Parts: sequence; structure tokens; C-alpha cells
Amino acid sequence: MVTCRGPARARRGRELADVEVLHDAAVLVDGDRVTWVGPRHEARDVHSAFRIPQSAIDVVEVAGVLFPGFVDCHTHAVFGAPRLDDQERRALGEDYKTIAALGGGILQSVRDVRARREEDLLALTRARVATLLAHGSTTIEVKSGYGLDPATELKQLRVIRDAGASGPATLIPTFLGAHEVPPEFRDRRADYVRLVCDHMIPTVARERLAVACDVFCEPGVFDVAQTRTILEAARRHGLAVKLHADELEGSGGAELGAALGATSVDHLAAISEAGIRALAASDTVAVLLPATLAFLGKHTHAPARRLVEAGAAVALATDFNPGSSPTMSLPLVMVLGVSQLGLRHAEVVTAVTVNAAAALGLAGDRGQIARGFRADLVSCGVSDWREVAYWMGANLVTAVWTGGSACRPSPGPVCLGFHVQA
Amino acid sequence: MVTCRGPARARRGRELADVEVLHDAAVLVDGDRVTWVGPRHEARDVHSAFRIPQSAIDVVEVAGVLFPGFVDCHTHAVFGAPRLDDQERRALGEDYKTIAALGGGILQSVRDVRARREEDLLALTRARVATLLAHGSTTIEVKSGYGLDPATELKQLRVIRDAGASGPATLIPTFLGAHEVPPEFRDRRADYVRLVCDHMIPTVARERLAVACDVFCEPGVFDVAQTRTILEAARRHGLAVKLHADELEGSGGAELGAALGATSVDHLAAISEAGIRALAASDTVAVLLPATLAFLGKHTHAPARRLVEAGAAVALATDFNPGSSPTMSLPLVMVLGVSQLGLRHAEVVTAVTVNAAAALGLAGDRGQIARGFRADLVSCGVSDWREVAYWMGANLVTAVWTGGSACRPSPGPVCLGFHVQA
Repeated sequence: MVTCRGPARARRGRELADVEVLHDAAVLVDGDRVTWVGPRHEARDVHSAFRIPQSAIDVVEVAGVLFPGFVDCHTHAVFGAPRLDDQERRALGEDYKTIAALGGGILQSVRDVRARREEDLLALTRARVATLLAHGSTTIEVKSGYGLDPATELKQLRVIRDAGASGPATLIPTFLGAHEVPPEFRDRRADYVRLVCDHMIPTVARERLAVACDVFCEPGVFDVAQTRTILEAARRHGLAVKLHADELEGSGGAELGAALGATSVDHLAAISEAGIRALAASDTVAVLLPATLAFLGKHTHAPARRLVEAGAAVALATDFNPGSSPTMSLPLVMVLGVSQLGLRHAEVVTAVTVNAAAALGLAGDRGQIARGFRADLVSCGVSDWREVAYWMGANLVTAVWTGGSACRPSPGPVCLGFHVQA
Repeated sequence: MVTCRGPARARRGRELADVEVLHDAAVLVDGDRVTWVGPRHEARDVHSAFRIPQSAIDVVEVAGVLFPGFVDCHTHAVFGAPRLDDQERRALGEDYKTIAALGGGILQSVRDVRARREEDLLALTRARVATLLAHGSTTIEVKSGYGLDPATELKQLRVIRDAGASGPATLIPTFLGAHEVPPEFRDRRADYVRLVCDHMIPTVARERLAVACDVFCEPGVFDVAQTRTILEAARRHGLAVKLHADELEGSGGAELGAALGATSVDHLAAISEAGIRALAASDTVAVLLPATLAFLGKHTHAPARRLVEAGAAVALATDFNPGSSPTMSLPLVMVLGVSQLGLRHAEVVTAVTVNAAAALGLAGDRGQIARGFRADLVSCGVSDWREVAYWMGANLVTAVWTGGSACRPSPGPVCLGFHVQA
């Protein structure tokens, strides 16, 4: 069992490599919480000490290695169609500008989500959340940001709420109205920032449809000043703040996030040395997204080792989205964390548990198998715990529990009908 | 349904992108062979024309998209333990020489396989083949090469034979005694080449334990002259020939493969322009292994587009092995083929079906859903066939048939026991 036990805060620097591994261990769960973790042979005595009659105990034997439920702290899981044409055009060497001009890019997903009925988006999102869960993610942050108008952003956030209400996974909603400037505001970008600040954020906060606000802070999208304006408005309305920062060009997004007390700054492939120092001196978690860069065929990655060595808190996430990261597997992201980012096995486990929980403001509630923590548990069919970040592309998850209850996740539905006669 | 129908030979150049996609289609299977493929509404008439009574027909409805069973034409699936320490050391920046000096590298797997009992290797191999099959690979080439002595090479080849005899997947055995020079021959490398040529190849051929012979042709391992010596010996004993070629340094391996009429030359990250031209003018298939380079964290890849544009036949494979490619998912390799190699969706489908079959000398027998071909079929839970090379790291395979029979593959066993009490 990998417990990840320790203080209820993000791990920084060398702490990332320090994970507790217990052999032949047991965990006692009461309701949705862990009440005890320790050697298996002591479990019976614990029952007695707690005066729990044997008849009131369900015993579940788990083969393999038990981990805290994985926390996917950055996804865009509410979307319509995959962007297959973009993928092929990129493979053949087209740049993003050309792809966007041909009708692809993020605005394709915006048109799609605006046009699609809420119940259809909900069905798609449920299927995708089931697949994320099947790969071990028990807590999943989901962003809006394919609406870019008040009605559609709210539609996306309601889908997140409803998909979370019905399912065993916990969905954490983030408002990302500032994901891009919508086409109808291209010539009056400041008006869109005002719409986000003065109308969308207050509505989202009032309706309690998001716990955080995110902005794509990047030259040509929202600059540092606009990002600050939006996130300060979000703060005033009680939302936590996050940034897509330093993804393509270093523009000071990491520094801004640290200065604003953001719970996380995400991407960071182009972070500066000053940005690294700012994160190391802050409580802001650096969320790295290696699957995105792999899927895009890029060969630059966020400076994960430098961040760790500087003393920053590093988390990993899928960035699950239809354009640049159609992956629903945090274990694959863990493999890429080792292979592409140069992280150690223990560091990637910390990065998708304790630190990913901290990136969502949940470091005291989940991400550890420890007394008082939520009983979100994942078992993997491996003999050495490090194998979870080794067998690239196989789903090793054999069982998932959320809030103490077993769930039997299955991948999403299939769509076209074909016919085999044997 | 993606049939990949066409001539019974590898597709070259532009032909790779030309895959037949049928909507609302049916396939008629008799015994282990496909007897008819066409529009679903015509299937009933075909039954009548063949005078098949309805009572003699089993109808299987398939949701999603049906593909020819995938062919994994390059694996090292017979091994003992994962090489987790190597992976971590590499992540932290150690080079292969240092890792090998610390007891890792290929010789760690050699020591492991030499020491391990044949029945243990067989159990591990069966579990791994089941996982490969669960990801859609119905025909799997498996190499020896972790023995490097006569007894252990034969042990590995018997494991391949026995794992194939018992399972629904077809295993194609390749003798790779020249995978590395074993430690006991480091000071007399020519003696090892003689042992391979004069003893091991004749024994393997006589016992019919392999259909092909492979050599790791690379400066510092087996040079071009030694490779030629070994492969000419293999030819004399009736084995097809293959090469690990131009993996790290371009040394003329591709040109040698083309000159020798090799069924495939594999890796090719460092192939020269002359090598590309030689392959384009030959029947030798270029087998590319992008998962290996991704897992190793390298950012150089084989020049897939240049190979295709020059008119070569390109295939993709997992290179499944414990050191540099612990992946059992050809669909993940297909995603990497698009993302990392710049191939189109149709090209990667051809590369794991028709062309991978050709790389094993099986182009007339499998890799297509076509009359007379073996009824190896895979259904994927997608609505657009291109999604098979898009959802990175999720297993979309919903059902597998080999030789006309449904198999219900499940991933391998789990090893350590842990304990949850809820």
C-alpha cells in the first residue's frame, strides 16, 4: 500500500520523493472516511479497541497495490466531438493558425458546445468521467471554457454539476470563461474581459457553479494585466484562482499566479527562472501536463526537475481535452512524468495524489490514505508499486472505491453499429 | 468497418493512406476464414447463394468499428522482471553505460531469464500475451535474445511455442541470439558469432523453434559484416531474416537488410538517405517503434514521412520489452505514430495491419478483412474509425476474435496481496 501519508499540504522539493509504502497492510474505513491504517495483523486488535463487533465489518481483500484515489486536477472534460481533423493536419505539419483558419482549433469546440443540447453534453461527460474513473481518477477537476458566452458557460458548469451529482467520482468545477476571446469579441477584447468580470463571474459565484476561476494567460489570448483583472474579480466573488500560464511563451504567468496566491499555475513549458523562484517561494502548485506536449508532438517540456529542485510543489494532470490531450489515463501521465519530465516514481505518485489535491484546495481532505481522509482508494494489478508509472498505456487499475464504496467503473458507450457473422 | 482490403502485399508510399472504410457492413466467416465482406443488407442474400441454412448461422452484432486484428510485428515479450531501476536512473539523467555498469541494461534481463524456470517464464508470457490481445493484437511476433547461450535461447523459444499453442493469439517466433554479445564472450566476440552461426541457428532451425532470425546491427554490438555473416547462415537454414538497424547510429543496417531481402528492418531512428532509398527500392518493410523513443525520453524519431514519401513500406510495432518499451498497446503506438511520427490515421492503421503482417511474411494470410483471409477481428468502441489512433492511453478494444472464434481477453495476473476493510 502506498499511503502518501504526511502533513495536509502540498509536498515541495525533496518531499515529493518521500512516499510511505506499507507491505501487508490494512485500512479501516468508517462511512466515507479512513479511520485507521497499519499492519494487517494489527487490524483485528483495532476492531476490538474500537468495540466494533465482527458482524458489523465487511472485509475486502485486495490483490496488488493500493493507492490513494488519483486526483486529476486539470481537465476540460465537457466537450462534444473529438478534433480528429486537427490531429491529422498537425501531423502533416500544419501550424495552429492554419488549422484554426480551416475551422479547427478551440473555436471548433466552442461552436460544437454552443450548438449541442445540455443533455447530450451530460451523457458524453458521464461516459468520459466513467473512463477517467476506470483509470483511477476519483477526484476530477473539470473546466468550462468551450462556451465563451454567459449561457453556454453556465450550461457547461451545470453539466459538470449534474455529472458529479450522479456519479461516484467527485467533480470539482472551475469557471474558464477566459479560455479564449470569442469570435464576436475579437475586435473589442476589453469588452469581453468586462463581460467575464462584471457578469459571468458574479453569476457563476451566485449560482455556486464553480469553486475556482481559471484564465488562459498567454500573449495573444489574455495578457498579464487582463488576467490579473479577471482573477481579482474572481477573488472578490469568493472563487479560488488558477492560471494556464507560460504554456507557449514565458510571459510572467507563474509570477502572477504566485503573487495572487493562486492554488495552481498550469502548463509552464515556457516558465522563466524568475517564475520558478516565485513558485518555490509560494504555496501555488505547479501543475505539469506532459501528455499534452506528447500528443502535440512537441519536444519541449516543463522544467520539472528544476521546479522540484528549486523547492516548488509539482502536480501532474491529464489536461483531458479534445484538441491537445485526448487522454483519460493518469497512469499514462505518470509514465510520461518519468520518461519525459525526468521525475522519479515516488515524485509522480505524489504529483497525482497529495499535490494534485492541494492544487484543488483539498490537501486536508484527500490524496492520502490516512486517518480522517476521504476513503477514495485505487488498487492496481502490480507487484511493485513503481510499476504504476512503468507499463505504458495499459490500464492496471483493478478496483476503485470512492467515499468508502466500491464502484465498478466501465469505459464509455460505443456509437456506431456494425455486424459480424461468425 | 475498416477492411484494409487490397493486394496481398505491403502497402508502399501513398498506398498506406488508402484504407477501405465500409459503413453498416457485414462479414461472413466460415471456420477460421473470412468468406465474404459487404453491405449488411446483402448478407442474407449471400447466405442463400451459399445455400447455408439460417439455423447454421451464428449472428454476432458488433457495436463500434471493426478492424482486422492488429499485428504486433516486433516484441521481446519473454522476460522476467520489469527494469524499474533503469527507468528511474534514466529519468535522473544517467546514461545507458552507467546504468549497465550498475547492473541494469539488457544484461540484467539476460541474467534474469537465464536464472528463471521455464514454467515461470511461460506463466509470465501468457499473462503478457493476454494483455497484448486485450489491446487488439491477434498476431504477435516474439523474439528470443535474453538468453545469449544455447540453452537459454532454446528455453525462450520453447516458451514462445508453448504460450502460442495454448492461447487464442498467434505467436510468431524469431531467434535473436545476436541481441548482444554475452559477458562471457566479451573478449572473443568472433567466437560468439561462430556459436550463433554454427550451433544455435542450426539447432533452432532443426527444432523448428523460429521462423526468422534477427540481429541487433549497431556499432559496438554486431557490425554490418558480423550481421551479414549471421543472417546468411540463417538464410541457409531456411529462416527469414530481420534486423534491428540504424537505431542509435546510422551504420548501413537498412541497406544491408534491403540487400539481403530481409522481411523487415526495425527501429531506423538514425537511418541515412541511402538507407531510405534502399528500402523504397526493396520489399523489406520498415518497422518503426515510436513507443520506445517516447519511453526513453528521446526526441529524435525515425523519419516516417520521408520513408512514406520515398515509397517505402512502413509498419509500426510496440517493441514490447522490459527496458525500453514496457507497452502492450498497439493503439497507443498508433497515437504516437500520428503525434510523434507525423503519420496520418489511415497510414497508422495500415502500419499495424497489412504492413505489419507483411513484416512477418504473412501478407497473404492476415491483416485484412477480406475473402480467404484469417478471421482475426477487433472491435473498438468508437464512432469514427480514426479515434482508434486518437484517445491516447485508453483501451478502446471491446471484443476480439481470432480464427473466427470470440476470445475474452483479460489483462495479466496480480501478484501481491493487500487488504481493505470497509
